[in-house]
Amino acid sequence: MAPAHDDLIVALGLAKGGMTLVDEARAHDLYAAMGPAREISGGSAANTLAGLAALGSACGFIGQVSQDQLGDVFAHDIRAGGIAFDTPARAGQPSTARCLIFVTPDGQRTMNTFLGASQFLPAEALDEKVIADAAVLYLEGYLWDPEEPRRAMRRAIGAARAAGRKVAFTLSDAFVIARHGDDFRALIAAGDIDILFANEHELAALTGQADFHDGLAALAPHVPTLVVTRSEQGAHAVSGGEHAHVAAAPVARVVDTTGAGDLFAAGFLFGHVRGLSLHTCLALGAACAAEVISHYGARPEADLRNLVAPLL
Amino acid sequence: MAPAHDDLIVALGLAKGGMTLVDEARAHDLYAAMGPAREISGGSAANTLAGLAALGSACGFIGQVSQDQLGDVFAHDIRAGGIAFDTPARAGQPSTARCLIFVTPDGQRTMNTFLGASQFLPAEALDEKVIADAAVLYLEGYLWDPEEPRRAMRRAIGAARAAGRKVAFTLSDAFVIARHGDDFRALIAAGDIDILFANEHELAALTGQADFHDGLAALAPHVPTLVVTRSEQGAHAVSGGEHAHVAAAPVARVVDTTGAGDLFAAGFLFGHVRGLSLHTCLALGAACAAEVISHYGARPEADLRNLVAPLL
Repeated sequence: MAPAHDDLIVALGLAKGGMTLVDEARAHDLYAAMGPAREISGGSAANTLAGLAALGSACGFIGQVSQDQLGDVFAHDIRAGGIAFDTPARAGQPSTARCLIFVTPDGQRTMNTFLGASQFLPAEALDEKVIADAAVLYLEGYLWDPEEPRRAMRRAIGAARAAGRKVAFTLSDAFVIARHGDDFRALIAAGDIDILFANEHELAALTGQADFHDGLAALAPHVPTLVVTRSEQGAHAVSGGEHAHVAAAPVARVVDTTGAGDLFAAGFLFGHVRGLSLHTCLALGAACAAEVISHYGARPEADLRNLVAPLL
Repeated sequence: MAPAHDDLIVALGLAKGGMTLVDEARAHDLYAAMGPAREISGGSAANTLAGLAALGSACGFIGQVSQDQLGDVFAHDIRAGGIAFDTPARAGQPSTARCLIFVTPDGQRTMNTFLGASQFLPAEALDEKVIADAAVLYLEGYLWDPEEPRRAMRRAIGAARAAGRKVAFTLSDAFVIARHGDDFRALIAAGDIDILFANEHELAALTGQADFHDGLAALAPHVPTLVVTRSEQGAHAVSGGEHAHVAAAPVARVVDTTGAGDLFAAGFLFGHVRGLSLHTCLALGAACAAEVISHYGARPEADLRNLVAPLL
């Protein structure tokens, strides 16, 4: 990731604030146009797990890296955070996924993702015992797009369901819903999603309701726990007929919004598995999101346990 | 680099505040013991050039990376900073150099460097025209230790001298002086070093004088321009009989001292090639050093041109 002025975003034809999938050639061109950068591990669900582990939850990660230096770095950072990670690295091309993130002076992030090896996570790589042992299986919508991880996620849902565990899902981005909204609606209708994370744009895309509250009202009856984030307007959750809202936690300066939703999910899930109130879960999410947007990168830097202690 | 508590420094048997060369196996072990980290391009002379380029100087870098992802990242960051870099990447093992840096809560950095490909920079890779065209050739003492880059640096000194250019040298670390002090003293005696950078410990090691001012008095007559940094006590320079001193520039919080000396050299050289006063050169160095120790990593993040504008 690197700082960038808005004119560079325009000159490169990027969708500011969005996530765009790119092939390796485009990733190469964008990297060449990027200023001096820093490399920080990422990945939506991996960021959420990094937050959960930092809060004190026991976590395991399933995901596909390649046998290359970036794969080594990713695996190091996950394991160094205390997260179990046993998916074997994949030999040969493509390389480990990377996301080229341009951060504009307003703190907004514009992401360009080369999925690389991550799109070849085979269903056979799942450790179903790990899934059956976990209170919650957490899945990211980004990986619903490529075929192999989608198949793996369907199998993972089956394993969690068979073990009586909860399934949490983040919709990730409106483009995923545009392509796979019918799948998601079917999963919801089948009762396969217990906790659904979305931002307001994803909620609108999934429900077809332009008005936020109409969208919330339309979707909430079909999901046991629905969590919707609205950036600086805070977040809402509806669970078992109860509605809770939290304001965004204050941030001295928004440096980089990358990972805000990922860390919100971390805080919420941390509270959820402990059976805390819906409002406390939201407050935990807001606190973790505020931490991650106060610095570069989508992994927490502050001591999250200390940070959230006043909320517990 | 990663944050670390002092007890980890002790448990790993590290020399706090120092730079230790490690082999690949030790680098692997230390990395495994390190917390979640971030990868930022580094290298002493490369950091100095990144600072000089950010200040507005035209720069070229000569150095050896490997054909791997970390080599690509290094080359990207150098070129994205506007620095010419044409040394071909090296095929095969060893991999690109890396430095595992543990940053303790006091902001001190403890470095463990695997030199990797950098120790195989061949003298034949030098572009002597680039050296002859540059006002100053800047060399780092760290690379005097391995044989090939030492040979390359001797040849580079010859090329700069033949073209009537200045040679600047940073002593880098007391351990380098312990092993190669005689070489350095011979270079100085031969008049091959025009600008010498050292910190107070390196000055003591080179001169054998425990007292700072005795060391300065002993060495200054033999070097056209001598620059000695003293961390929070500021820095001194002696040139043509003139003595200047600058206090350390104020820093709200010292986050990570990595690169302080490198960026001090950048600011000083920027002023020196413009013929600015000795005191202004020191003030430029102090301002750049203060910027780099206010955040993680040894590459500047703030706009250095704006930062130093009041000093010009």
